[in-house]
Amino acid sequence: MNRIITISREFGSGGREIGKRLADELKIPYYDREIITEIAKETGMTQEYINKFSETGITNYPFQFAKSFTTYSGLQSGMIQILISQQKVLKEIAKKGDCIIVGRGADVILKDYDPFNIFVYADMKSKIKRCKEKASQEEDFTDKEYKNKILKVDKNRRKYHDVISNAEWENKENYDLCINTSNIEIKKVIVPLSNYIKEFFGGRQ
Amino acid sequence: MNRIITISREFGSGGREIGKRLADELKIPYYDREIITEIAKETGMTQEYINKFSETGITNYPFQFAKSFTTYSGLQSGMIQILISQQKVLKEIAKKGDCIIVGRGADVILKDYDPFNIFVYADMKSKIKRCKEKASQEEDFTDKEYKNKILKVDKNRRKYHDVISNAEWENKENYDLCINTSNIEIKKVIVPLSNYIKEFFGGRQ
Repeated sequence: MNRIITISREFGSGGREIGKRLADELKIPYYDREIITEIAKETGMTQEYINKFSETGITNYPFQFAKSFTTYSGLQSGMIQILISQQKVLKEIAKKGDCIIVGRGADVILKDYDPFNIFVYADMKSKIKRCKEKASQEEDFTDKEYKNKILKVDKNRRKYHDVISNAEWENKENYDLCINTSNIEIKKVIVPLSNYIKEFFGGRQ
Repeated sequence: MNRIITISREFGSGGREIGKRLADELKIPYYDREIITEIAKETGMTQEYINKFSETGITNYPFQFAKSFTTYSGLQSGMIQILISQQKVLKEIAKKGDCIIVGRGADVILKDYDPFNIFVYADMKSKIKRCKEKASQEEDFTDKEYKNKILKVDKNRRKYHDVISNAEWENKENYDLCINTSNIEIKKVIVPLSNYIKEFFGGRQ
């Protein structure tokens, strides 16, 4: 079976950096925004629309979602299309070969592929610091604005996870390893981390 | 500053095995039951009494604890003595040199020593399996009995942590790394894990 690594992450915690660096170290493909491109191809929707849905779509929904796929009937047809297409795209990626997938609920959507599931998190201070470092020159947010942005994005990720599964997004039980990046330099832990993952898959064969 | 590694763990998850093996790999002392011996010396109580307190003591308490050390006043004097002695013993150990400490709320008691805090957990099936493998010949529990034992011990650990700090025992925010042992062979991940920890401390200096 292919080695599938999924990364769920709090906004600003460096989950994407961990994903990219792990992919380089393990020499396997990395998927993040590429998934949006594929969904766009599949559905004929624009990447902007799909992206907007991923970032803020679900939390703006006025009605209550039950925790199962049957609630798709309660979603606007555009959103249904995106969710179904996303599942298809993720499964196609997983079938192709070893890979790292960041976000999109891949931990639960690809459960049958026995993935190694990582959750990346950090304290608020570290996340704000990271957001500032990564900000473009034009972006001029206060700490409070960054905090609000972090809370808003994570609220949506939590809600999205709730819609597609019974597993709570933040619950460590869903993950093989939960990494707090508050006190580490990410690039320095990539080699030990990749060796840990190799042992995980090695032990399974 | 000394390199202090603390391990909090669900009963049956293999936290003690991780601690012992990490100590061997890193060539540093490992403290677990030795702490009880020290407390016994300090307080003049028997190890059995202290151990019983650690395993079931707090959950048997009928009254509500507030979440601060000030609630010591509500504890029986024997328990107060144990808690205070435990703090003293842990701090003495931390001052002596690099070490690994399993349990006893060392993650919060030694906060000022900037420890690397690990939480070890697993799914119930794996924990029952591990308990069975480790059981003595005389021990003949059913799966349900093991499950009850696991839940009871963990309830006490949670409660103990609540008494000594505001930090929730199971909350991943309190830890640098949370390790799910359900799908790994512990001895195989010790080297990557110890390298991860070395980078953590290396990055801090």
